[in-house]
Amino acid sequence: MAMHVYTASFEVSLKVGPDIADISGSLAKIVAASGVRTGTLNATAIGSTASLSTIEYEPGAVEDLKAAITRLAPPDMRYAHEEAWHDGNGHSHVQAALLNPGLVLPVRDGRIHTGTWQQAILINHDNRPRRRSVDVTVIGTD
Amino acid sequence: MAMHVYTASFEVSLKVGPDIADISGSLAKIVAASGVRTGTLNATAIGSTASLSTIEYEPGAVEDLKAAITRLAPPDMRYAHEEAWHDGNGHSHVQAALLNPGLVLPVRDGRIHTGTWQQAILINHDNRPRRRSVDVTVIGTD
Amino acid sequence: MAMHVYTASFEVSLKVGPDIADISGSLAKIVAASGVRTGTLNATAIGSTASLSTIEYEPGAVEDLKAAITRLAPPDMRYAHEEAWHDGNGHSHVQAALLNPGLVLPVRDGRIHTGTWQQAILINHDNRPRRRSVDVTVIGTD
Repeated sequence: MAMHVYTASFEVSLKVGPDIADISGSLAKIVAASGVRTGTLNATAIGSTASLSTIEYEPGAVEDLKAAITRLAPPDMRYAHEEAWHDGNGHSHVQAALLNPGLVLPVRDGRIHTGTWQQAILINHDNRPRRRSVDVTVIGTD
Repeated sequence: MAMHVYTASFEVSLKVGPDIADISGSLAKIVAASGVRTGTLNATAIGSTASLSTIEYEPGAVEDLKAAITRLAPPDMRYAHEEAWHDGNGHSHVQAALLNPGLVLPVRDGRIHTGTWQQAILINHDNRPRRRSVDVTVIGTD
Repeated sequence: MAMHVYTASFEVSLKVGPDIADISGSLAKIVAASGVRTGTLNATAIGSTASLSTIEYEPGAVEDLKAAITRLAPPDMRYAHEEAWHDGNGHSHVQAALLNPGLVLPVRDGRIHTGTWQQAILINHDNRPRRRSVDVTVIGTD
């Protein structure tokens, strides 16, 4: 068994935040291409107004998560970031920082192992549509 | 020094969420069995209504964390997930997604290095008792 | 290409929480010293009242994140932790557990790859100034 370090990145176009994409398929393709059968997948959302997590990706739970993220840092509050930058996305920075940009998932038998209803998600928190990027590192043995 | 990739999983029975277990002992045994002395432990909660983190595992702080998790997504709100699925756990999905399913801990001198009062925890957010599973990958040198 | 596992730790003095330091420079030096050009950086905040994340590290966004962290678990609530320990930091434990102690960042071309405005941060949640410690593991190929 040889050790491998395989890297890849991909992009997803997302709407005004909070908007959420299921990235399970993209991650699965990367793991398949990596040749790693046993190890870990580490992913990071690139950019300070994006984050990663997992959820049951069905429309209701996604809508509920968007509402909860908005409650964490509503756009209609006062943000000190706005007073300097006036770009309207103070809440976006706060939401992304609270959620964490990273995700670690197990690779077993050449596949990502998650729960049956557990999908990996990428969240755009910015106040405008963004093409968001994710960096993926797969480390393990073949 | 040889590189190792060691994998293991374990299960913990938890009560109606938010319920919280100290998994430090289970992780310590896995690191000991791995033979890894220097590296990283990556753990992931399997399932869309579970999460991982760390806390000082004493009854008061655990109770306080349960209360804070409930404030993030209270069970007595309207959830779109419920309108389709009627399984009463819309809040569970939201809580778990906000907390992140993953945890990375350093392995040093053959042990997990955390603060003296810092224990690894597994959280069940579901609205019923669940036997929850954690996948662990230890990567490093002996 | 040889595999490397490089470990390091560093400390940062922080004020009464929530206080936030930009640790991007410290992490960059560690990656440079590691000799790893392609892989992953895993970092963990040591201690149950500290956490890691990323943000655009400018004074406004940092102030906004502090305010949001305080809303998650305000110091002026009742905490069960206090009734046993009377150390005034029940909110600190809750905040740190909600945010997660870990951070995974990609290493590409010998450097950490993040967004242009995305800095790695260490957060002290404790109710007194603390010298906080971060453990870093860099794994990858040269």
